[in-house]
Amino acid sequence: MNDHANISIRLARESDNDALWPILRDVIRVGETYTYDPGLTREASLDLWTVAPRATYVAEVDGEIMGSYFIKTNQQGGGAHVCNCGYMVAPGARGRGLAAAMCLHSQAEALALGYKAMQFNFVVATNLGAVHLWHKLGFETVGRLPRAFAHPTQGLVDALVMYKWLAEDAG
Amino acid sequence: MNDHANISIRLARESDNDALWPILRDVIRVGETYTYDPGLTREASLDLWTVAPRATYVAEVDGEIMGSYFIKTNQQGGGAHVCNCGYMVAPGARGRGLAAAMCLHSQAEALALGYKAMQFNFVVATNLGAVHLWHKLGFETVGRLPRAFAHPTQGLVDALVMYKWLAEDAG
Repeated sequence: MNDHANISIRLARESDNDALWPILRDVIRVGETYTYDPGLTREASLDLWTVAPRATYVAEVDGEIMGSYFIKTNQQGGGAHVCNCGYMVAPGARGRGLAAAMCLHSQAEALALGYKAMQFNFVVATNLGAVHLWHKLGFETVGRLPRAFAHPTQGLVDALVMYKWLAEDAG
Repeated sequence: MNDHANISIRLARESDNDALWPILRDVIRVGETYTYDPGLTREASLDLWTVAPRATYVAEVDGEIMGSYFIKTNQQGGGAHVCNCGYMVAPGARGRGLAAAMCLHSQAEALALGYKAMQFNFVVATNLGAVHLWHKLGFETVGRLPRAFAHPTQGLVDALVMYKWLAEDAG
């Protein structure tokens, strides 16, 4: 297993934006895993990642920001007990357990914020590392969207809907 | 079959808002089929229905607005070829084929706007009439979200993800 000892996760602050932007930019520009417009500006990207969600966190490795995630309410009204999260890891920090650490952290935060379940609306099916990790962390694939994602090199590929009930109670 | 002869569907105008609001209000207040906050104001409701989407339409029966639907892009970037629609029918106009007429109209409009597929993100599983109608109109249930909707009288119930590929080409 990876060594998580040097990972610490905390709420993001506006002063983190200079460190956050290169991480967002690299993932968004490649356009293989998220449904952001690849040409999104720095300001629009940071707004979507840090302002629109309910909460945004950064993961530091030896004090340097190497990953980030957000939590938002996935639907309003009768669907407001289910949250949605998105996670990004800097290219140079992959394979160190950061995504797993952030996902575990997010599940605890989601419960603390009052959510009962977590849903990933759009996991690109070719993103095998993510699919495998989310399964390992207790998420089920509850849906498959045929050819819902235009992959920049693989053409139209499926996207998965993944879901995990977090609350102890039956509802 | 129902008689569609007197149904006409056109783009919504701001001057339709007085006729639209009671339709939205009744569906939103009951809170059994859509994930809007049941206490949403008139202004916020009309913004979500008529301003935020890419296009909004009204369905008139004998010149009176009895239904409405919107089309929006469901995801950005690599997911932007899939649209999402929402439909509402006035309580007094149900059973006349309005929802079917609007859904057929929306499929044609979606293609005209350049979309290749249509996705319903959150069809409450207890809304059997809608589930049956969407199946009949070519949508597949591609996902099931367990206990994702807090129904006002039935407690936590599932929601379905439904999907239809619209384009003639394979992609």
